[in-house]
Amino acid sequence: MDAKVTVKEYMQRLGQQARVASRMLARASTDEKNTALQAMADAIRTQAGSLLKANNTDMTAGKQNGLDAALLDRLELNVERIEAMALGMEQIAALPDPIGEISDMKYQPSGIQVGKMRVPLGVIGIIYESRPNVTADAAALCLKSGNAAILRGGSEAAHSNQAIAECIRTGLKKAGLPETVVQVIETTDRAAVGELITMQDYVDVIVPRGGKGLIERVSAEARVPVIKHLHGICHTYIDDKADKEKAINVAFNAKTQRYGTCNTMETLLVHQAIASDVLPELARMYQEKAVELRGCGATQKLLVGIHAATAEDWDTEYLAPILSIRIVDDLDMAMDHIHEHSSGHTEVIITEDVGRARRFLAEVDSSSVMLNASSRFADGFEYGLGAEIGISTDKIHARGPVGLAGLTSQKYIVVGDGHIRT
Amino acid sequence: MDAKVTVKEYMQRLGQQARVASRMLARASTDEKNTALQAMADAIRTQAGSLLKANNTDMTAGKQNGLDAALLDRLELNVERIEAMALGMEQIAALPDPIGEISDMKYQPSGIQVGKMRVPLGVIGIIYESRPNVTADAAALCLKSGNAAILRGGSEAAHSNQAIAECIRTGLKKAGLPETVVQVIETTDRAAVGELITMQDYVDVIVPRGGKGLIERVSAEARVPVIKHLHGICHTYIDDKADKEKAINVAFNAKTQRYGTCNTMETLLVHQAIASDVLPELARMYQEKAVELRGCGATQKLLVGIHAATAEDWDTEYLAPILSIRIVDDLDMAMDHIHEHSSGHTEVIITEDVGRARRFLAEVDSSSVMLNASSRFADGFEYGLGAEIGISTDKIHARGPVGLAGLTSQKYIVVGDGHIRT
Repeated sequence: MDAKVTVKEYMQRLGQQARVASRMLARASTDEKNTALQAMADAIRTQAGSLLKANNTDMTAGKQNGLDAALLDRLELNVERIEAMALGMEQIAALPDPIGEISDMKYQPSGIQVGKMRVPLGVIGIIYESRPNVTADAAALCLKSGNAAILRGGSEAAHSNQAIAECIRTGLKKAGLPETVVQVIETTDRAAVGELITMQDYVDVIVPRGGKGLIERVSAEARVPVIKHLHGICHTYIDDKADKEKAINVAFNAKTQRYGTCNTMETLLVHQAIASDVLPELARMYQEKAVELRGCGATQKLLVGIHAATAEDWDTEYLAPILSIRIVDDLDMAMDHIHEHSSGHTEVIITEDVGRARRFLAEVDSSSVMLNASSRFADGFEYGLGAEIGISTDKIHARGPVGLAGLTSQKYIVVGDGHIRT
Repeated sequence: MDAKVTVKEYMQRLGQQARVASRMLARASTDEKNTALQAMADAIRTQAGSLLKANNTDMTAGKQNGLDAALLDRLELNVERIEAMALGMEQIAALPDPIGEISDMKYQPSGIQVGKMRVPLGVIGIIYESRPNVTADAAALCLKSGNAAILRGGSEAAHSNQAIAECIRTGLKKAGLPETVVQVIETTDRAAVGELITMQDYVDVIVPRGGKGLIERVSAEARVPVIKHLHGICHTYIDDKADKEKAINVAFNAKTQRYGTCNTMETLLVHQAIASDVLPELARMYQEKAVELRGCGATQKLLVGIHAATAEDWDTEYLAPILSIRIVDDLDMAMDHIHEHSSGHTEVIITEDVGRARRFLAEVDSSSVMLNASSRFADGFEYGLGAEIGISTDKIHARGPVGLAGLTSQKYIVVGDGHIRT
């Protein structure tokens, strides 16, 4: 970034360039886009040395600035992680091109044919935190879906991100696409984010990826539409008509398969008629994994010695080996609890009763609703999307895991043969 | 509205009531919704007398306040218009229920089945101007799509809208649905709109219907997502490979079938190689209809005596018998003109050349793109949607004519049999 221009001028220029590039990219063939993705992957492999060097600069600064171990781990690039970035790009190249897909083409009574064609959104702004691999992932997903991208990574990863950006530009150049298809913001000035999320003329959608603080700030200040999820307070309800073995397996997996993910169960709801059949066994399994249990009064009577769940617990995303448990009277009470405390991410019912399953699937208003399966499945790869840019708990546009199609729009196409309206 | 509560308190109460009602409505069966729609239509017919009386109060006040003839015409209810409202509700009752539709259900490698279920958005706020029939239309579309509605009509139609609201409540009551499923704002205080468009906790989407001024104000101040189109600057491009008869018929129809609609052609682009074959005949036809022509330099040479089109003309939605005409070198120049001046509503190419048609349909970035058909077809009824709440030129969520599906969202549903993630 030229020292003489203001952040606003700099961002406006990036926006204008992205808009022009997006129009060229929208016309690019599937082959051109895949060629660019492969050339980007190749460049990441051949420039692994400079990536490691740039990352070393970030890591050294991070240690000096006292970043904690978890943050440093996210920041770190190594040979495996670099290969994973290149592989990720090749996987996205191998996915079907969503752009240009025509669907629902039907004759109307007037004789015209009306259908829909999938097209790019235009320019996508992505704001993320310390992981530099997001630079590669996000660039590849935007490119494949025909969108120009403006990327803003964490300042602690600035050197790593610029080195990855260099590989991306190499790939774009090789495919004959403009280098401005993917732009990584050079300044670490926070004002750049403020500009990015309010440039309605140049940016069509913002995807913030990171902690709750980042996402709340972006959502509150954005004038451009935002695809986001704030947090994941996921529930599993064990119905009294559940198969006990399935209930125990799924509830155990949903909490313990990984603790730090947004689709991990945070609250277990259990029908009062089955509680004494499943909870003691589940408690033993959780405690073996050192999961702290916090329960309602009825749960505390059944599982003597566990902590009481406070009002706050029901609204907390622990992202840790902690689980709150509530015994409920029936399905309605379970759904009322979910309605009141869920973050709209993923909810699960365990039951063998078709009527209860049907009601839960229809009535629970979350981005994913599951029957007899672990909430940990709520993921773009597990859903067959091939990749994901994130998960949306909004109802507008994309909902649930967002893959390539979530970064597109559909326009109407009409084919006539000289048809006029009478 | 109780005189003791502030507008903010009043609107918050409406929002809370709508949220509660939306949850009950989301569970309503297709039969319950259709019963309510039929009962609403019946009430409109049986209460025609009180509708006419309430409308008379508005009309008298409108005349006293000096409303112009066009506005008074829009405001007026008569026996035919009342019957049309009732019929519209019956037509919406006859449409398939979009809610609960499950699509794309597929097995994944893990063994889970993943698909999507169509669900309501929740609470929809609709802001409109003088036509009271919008109260009936909007209520019916929201109800059928499972959404609670908060409606805000023009203050000049306040008595008419409240009388229609009374019919709606009668219908809801007969079907056993809460009366708060459809709420018509009682206060004419403009601050109510400001509250409605910023109540993110209670309103999921805003649909403004009316003039550009209203829509610009709503868009600028809204914190809730907005489904809208600002204006319609629609283009028709006559390619040199066009069939002359089709070109003339379509270009004539696109301008003259109706002047005041958003899908009316405002600018005609003609390839230089075909201009002298089609423009003189078209000019004669337009002039017979008293359409004022404004042309670029080359057009003025061909059609002697017409006015020059100024820079402003290319960016103007006339909504009147005026047409700007530009002769272009080729398809690229036509698409560049469209890219620069279009409002993203509807653009048409007239050609018999498959390659040019393919490029135009793929590359032009508007909500509807047409081949050999009049732009006047850009309409929810003509597209087979059965009804429309409006047209969106945004790329996020709904694009083009918005029918029942545009007022819904899709959540993921996952069905397993005790599946866990490994």
